Amino acid sequence: MGYELGNYDVIVVGAGHAGCEAALAAARMGKKTLIFAINLESIAMMPCNPSIGGTGKGHLVREIDALGGEMGINTDKAFIQSKMLNTRKGPAVHSLRCQADKQLYHTEMKKTLESTENLDVKQAEVTDIIVENGKVTGVITMTNAIYRAKAVILATGTFLRGKIFIGESSFMSGPNGLAPSVILADNLKKHGLSMRRFKTGTPARVLAQSLDYSKMKEEKGDEHIVPFSFMNDSLEKEQISCWLTYTNENTHDIIRRNFSRSALFGGEIEGIGPRYCPSIEDKVNRFADRKKHQTFIEPEGLDTDEMYVQGMSTSLPEDVQLEFYKTIPGLENVRITRPAYAIEYDSIDPLTLKMNLESRAIENLFCAGQFNGSSGYEEAAAQGLMAGINAVLKIDQKNPFILDRSEAYIGVLIDDLVVKGTNEPYRIMTSRAEYRLVLRQDNADTRLTEKGYQLGLVSQERYNKYLQKKEAVEKEIERLENTEVLPTEAEEFLISLGSTPLKNKTTLAELLKRPEITYENLEAIDNYPDRLTGHAATQLQVQIKYAGYIDKQLSQIEKFKKLENKKLPQDIVYGEIEGLRIEARQKLDAIKPVSVGQASRISGVSPADINVLLIYLERNRRSGNNEN
Amino acid sequence: MGYELGNYDVIVVGAGHAGCEAALAAARMGKKTLIFAINLESIAMMPCNPSIGGTGKGHLVREIDALGGEMGINTDKAFIQSKMLNTRKGPAVHSLRCQADKQLYHTEMKKTLESTENLDVKQAEVTDIIVENGKVTGVITMTNAIYRAKAVILATGTFLRGKIFIGESSFMSGPNGLAPSVILADNLKKHGLSMRRFKTGTPARVLAQSLDYSKMKEEKGDEHIVPFSFMNDSLEKEQISCWLTYTNENTHDIIRRNFSRSALFGGEIEGIGPRYCPSIEDKVNRFADRKKHQTFIEPEGLDTDEMYVQGMSTSLPEDVQLEFYKTIPGLENVRITRPAYAIEYDSIDPLTLKMNLESRAIENLFCAGQFNGSSGYEEAAAQGLMAGINAVLKIDQKNPFILDRSEAYIGVLIDDLVVKGTNEPYRIMTSRAEYRLVLRQDNADTRLTEKGYQLGLVSQERYNKYLQKKEAVEKEIERLENTEVLPTEAEEFLISLGSTPLKNKTTLAELLKRPEITYENLEAIDNYPDRLTGHAATQLQVQIKYAGYIDKQLSQIEKFKKLENKKLPQDIVYGEIEGLRIEARQKLDAIKPVSVGQASRISGVSPADINVLLIYLERNRRSGNNEN
Repeated sequence: MGYELGNYDVIVVGAGHAGCEAALAAARMGKKTLIFAINLESIAMMPCNPSIGGTGKGHLVREIDALGGEMGINTDKAFIQSKMLNTRKGPAVHSLRCQADKQLYHTEMKKTLESTENLDVKQAEVTDIIVENGKVTGVITMTNAIYRAKAVILATGTFLRGKIFIGESSFMSGPNGLAPSVILADNLKKHGLSMRRFKTGTPARVLAQSLDYSKMKEEKGDEHIVPFSFMNDSLEKEQISCWLTYTNENTHDIIRRNFSRSALFGGEIEGIGPRYCPSIEDKVNRFADRKKHQTFIEPEGLDTDEMYVQGMSTSLPEDVQLEFYKTIPGLENVRITRPAYAIEYDSIDPLTLKMNLESRAIENLFCAGQFNGSSGYEEAAAQGLMAGINAVLKIDQKNPFILDRSEAYIGVLIDDLVVKGTNEPYRIMTSRAEYRLVLRQDNADTRLTEKGYQLGLVSQERYNKYLQKKEAVEKEIERLENTEVLPTEAEEFLISLGSTPLKNKTTLAELLKRPEITYENLEAIDNYPDRLTGHAATQLQVQIKYAGYIDKQLSQIEKFKKLENKKLPQDIVYGEIEGLRIEARQKLDAIKPVSVGQASRISGVSPADINVLLIYLERNRRSGNNEN
Repeated sequence: MGYELGNYDVIVVGAGHAGCEAALAAARMGKKTLIFAINLESIAMMPCNPSIGGTGKGHLVREIDALGGEMGINTDKAFIQSKMLNTRKGPAVHSLRCQADKQLYHTEMKKTLESTENLDVKQAEVTDIIVENGKVTGVITMTNAIYRAKAVILATGTFLRGKIFIGESSFMSGPNGLAPSVILADNLKKHGLSMRRFKTGTPARVLAQSLDYSKMKEEKGDEHIVPFSFMNDSLEKEQISCWLTYTNENTHDIIRRNFSRSALFGGEIEGIGPRYCPSIEDKVNRFADRKKHQTFIEPEGLDTDEMYVQGMSTSLPEDVQLEFYKTIPGLENVRITRPAYAIEYDSIDPLTLKMNLESRAIENLFCAGQFNGSSGYEEAAAQGLMAGINAVLKIDQKNPFILDRSEAYIGVLIDDLVVKGTNEPYRIMTSRAEYRLVLRQDNADTRLTEKGYQLGLVSQERYNKYLQKKEAVEKEIERLENTEVLPTEAEEFLISLGSTPLKNKTTLAELLKRPEITYENLEAIDNYPDRLTGHAATQLQVQIKYAGYIDKQLSQIEKFKKLENKKLPQDIVYGEIEGLRIEARQKLDAIKPVSVGQASRISGVSPADINVLLIYLERNRRSGNNEN
């Protein structure tokens, strides 16, 4: 019945944020790649908030960029407001966040896919994967077309058995009236994948012209725009504003009165929602004492009047939505274009994945994004990139590319998913990273671009740019450490900042460590012609100011690495190791951690179990069986 | 179970080309209007060819524009190539045709809808209409939301029970992976509407970079761009090219060999396709002696590499598509992004509609576009506009707005559909218009703008522009008729054109009647400072050059009007009129023509029957019962 339509190295199912990065990575690494979308107008669609980045998420975007991914570059093309968050806090949590023009984001990404060598783009619904002898060898579409591939990457987002809930109603659907992917969901179960049901939600979209901005607080973009991509030194763009307003007791009363009509509380939804992105009825329910909840009204693009009502996702019926939205100052006459809804979808249990995002059950089947139980565009893109890279490495019989928790947020994200697992849509947060002073967004290139270059993913242009920046920062640090300032020379400058006067001569580097002094204002007493700007200046400043803390964290990382480097052979049969508790045996056998470090992070594996493991490894090493 | 969400005057179901015009017309005429789309990113989507206009269709666009519709204005914003067709033929068939940037066309139309007063835009799937005592009073959506309205306009396009066919496969779907509208289809049948099954198709989309243009003929746009809208006097834009190539015997062999695998010949498709837009297998089958068929390769927009392969629609399987596309010169290495497909959908029998596009079965239910059995964006938009206008007039208890066959292509289109009916997707053609020398695109404003203004649809700005143009043309004709030229004055000019020399002095108007002389080149001997340009110059020239033919046609129209003006009361019981043949009685009772003219165009009503009718009317008139 089926007919052959092509042979590829890598096939990617789904063209959202995960799928796009996966396909671009594979194609850029030289593999003949094919990406499928149910609708080509929905490539890189933003079905929820019109923004990229934010705390933790911005870090991921920088890391994706540093490795040669697309999300940062595409955001730089499509943003309409840019803001550096948490600038009053430490540099570890400085995070870039951009409002993006949704349509432009899609258009630019589609253009990039179309123009990438080795990459084919196809509109079709994939309905099955072909598995032969435990290995995936291709996919089948709705029309029985067969496409062969050496590796397949699943990035199905919320389409997989998508079901929308609005109040008492529910119906099978992908986001925005797009077709849900039901046959594929059935077939993945048949192939033995361990599937689960998650849910997420989105607020209503409203018309800007129906809002009263005089009752809201204007939130402008940064005057000085910091680009997402290391490829862009600076960007100029006219930005548009967001608007801040709040719910109130009246809002909450209406929501409370209608709890029984929410799909969330009606027991209809079996999927588990994202803890850190709760619906408004969930917030009103869980934080009953809160008098108000904030909401940012965010533009969806330059060419539309539609606005996003951040934080107000709900599965209450539309009449209730309208009623409570109207109680929010500025929204008294709101006109809704799209109602808020919850959407339930199938996803895989990430504990059944390997660290390279390959399925344990089916060889060469890679998985990424919401399919793996994460939430968020950035989390999806990060996994997509890693799945793409690892699919290529697997095909080439090379070692997998795995980032550990000390190297990248990407490492934290994947380690959390694959080793700890998740019972709800997983969101990255800076608090999840143990070594976050080292995993900064400003040094993502220092951490990762060399690796991306070795992988063949980072272009020569990017690599050269990175090397130049690296050298410039090193040289400038050296100069600052060796340039001395006399107390008289600095006096006026220090007074102007209310900074303690100098007693002895000191170096510019020492001065820069003072909190009130920035590399930028230091220019007043440092008339060196080739001072740094942009990404380089930011990184230099953090490196000097926080040198002590960074050093401390680097030594913690060394300890961490010791356990990470104690590799656990993949063929250990934990059930046979004496001394391990039964739960630990089962978990270790299921998850097969690659290192003692990872093993220690598995829930149900105790420190005592780790000691048993260490003794077991040592014994093996002595008898010559250990790889380490 | 349902909940009330709003009260409107007019609700429009579907936001394609018909729905957009319907909603804009109703809102602009002051009615509180709501338009629904399954997906707001698909507003004014072009699921087939990326072009607006063409022979006959361009006339419709001008008429829509003259009445205050949006298609012409929107095309002027979004076109990327403009061409006046048939310029070597008579002015009756001069037709403008534009390639449009699909995404821009959508974006601009969405912006216009969002910013139109009295108009709400909603993303939702309408699943039922509410009918009370034979009158429609609202709609119900998938989430059981109830929206009340005084009139409802159905413009569901190919979504209604949409089913896609590709080779041996078929599946329920709207275009481009959008959800089909199945529940509404079931409910419309339950409400007693007389539904049918039509089908249409679209060719594959291919990547420009995979084509070899050196093997095709470049088709550039016109150097001098003529705007679609009467609101634009001139437009400057950089245009991009289309490319012409041909199938060959090899192509046809492959297609013939695979006839058995085409959904078209497999008996799977029950819907009837458009005669004038056949699939390539249909062409190869029907015109077996043709050695080649032409295909234009047309860009889908500025921001995409996708190209449309005009004329190559097919429901052959994808492997065959790829095989035969590759035989076409320039497509040897073609890469397909979206396969060709056929799509089947539910539509209403237009014989069950009144001339105002209202259902005979359900009062205040208006119908437009493919839902009425037409094919094409322009045909859809024209009906949408008329349905919008007539819904408003019905609400206001005013007389319907009906254009007859001598007034507009819109009149021909609706008269054909509603009086003659159609057994296949109906396409407008200049040959369908009896009075086409009068129904020119250049004089659409003269024919219709005054009417649009009376309806409250044409803006004061447009009306003033029209009046100015009208006066300018009249004055200029008078001047040309009164400006005399001496043989000596014209000698050099006439020689340069190879035109016969003058014997006596004559007027500029007389000279302009010579085929080789145009208003433009006449400038050589006419140095009047305020000569006309743009739309006005075009109209003036046609009016002078073809004055004789036009006058002849005007007197034909007078005769035509006599029969059209013999109104037939809507309460005549034809079954009781003696002398009418049985078939005529049945047809007349079903269709209830508004005039003897219309009655004469009903298939199955003979000239003898018309004579019986005329006698019947005359008898009635004498006895004082006749309205006329």
